[in-house]
Amino acid sequence: MPKATVSLVKDMQFLGETGSGHVIVMDANEQFGGHDTGSRPMELLLVGFGGCTGMDVISILRKKRQKVNGLSITVDGTKADGHPGRYTKIHLKYTVTGKEVKPDAVERSISLSLEKYCSVGATLGASAEITHEFEIVEAD
Amino acid sequence: MPKATVSLVKDMQFLGETGSGHVIVMDANEQFGGHDTGSRPMELLLVGFGGCTGMDVISILRKKRQKVNGLSITVDGTKADGHPGRYTKIHLKYTVTGKEVKPDAVERSISLSLEKYCSVGATLGASAEITHEFEIVEAD
Repeated sequence: MPKATVSLVKDMQFLGETGSGHVIVMDANEQFGGHDTGSRPMELLLVGFGGCTGMDVISILRKKRQKVNGLSITVDGTKADGHPGRYTKIHLKYTVTGKEVKPDAVERSISLSLEKYCSVGATLGASAEITHEFEIVEAD
Repeated sequence: MPKATVSLVKDMQFLGETGSGHVIVMDANEQFGGHDTGSRPMELLLVGFGGCTGMDVISILRKKRQKVNGLSITVDGTKADGHPGRYTKIHLKYTVTGKEVKPDAVERSISLSLEKYCSVGATLGASAEITHEFEIVEAD
């Protein structure tokens, strides 16, 4: 099962080590006593969501033999007012770059990820309304 | 509001860039076509949770004038069986190191974080049951 250990370095800087052995720096901004040396914790949820659904979508598009040579996802979060500011909405915008990529295949791969496979999306979806859009960019 | 952009590098490796301008590498393990060059997306939720509550707890303990010189948090996630494997339980273990740190102050700071301040905890708490324990290690 997934795990992580997070340790204070100094001020508001924390070092996270994942169970898989990778390291992530987190920090607050100056307003909250930090020095912006690393990501905000709330940002990591959005990065993880993009990575999770990105891995699903690229896997499915490859299985569908779509000629994809690029995939990027912007993830925008909306927080509740006040404390705690949990995510109430998260919007994903997928940009798929490739040659004659079929829109149906892209929509289907995103739907499968968001409705069936993506564990991060299912976790965050208990708090936030998840919406998405996509565009396809033609390129050899 | 928080945002992130995630881009495919190759195979299952993705690079995430946070709105604050920091970069995080994600990758799958070999079993899922990756090469373990970065964190799993689901791990990032646990890292973010540890960082979020860690920043709260250290801030509150400093305000309470507790002589804390170390704080680490292990975060263990339990996923649902099958797809999607959302988090159903997350357990936090806080280790506070310092001189004559009061257990009441530690318990209170953790409660304030988990019940009032931590946005990551409030988001993940919509999916997972959150539990915690703590220990205090005496050190000059």
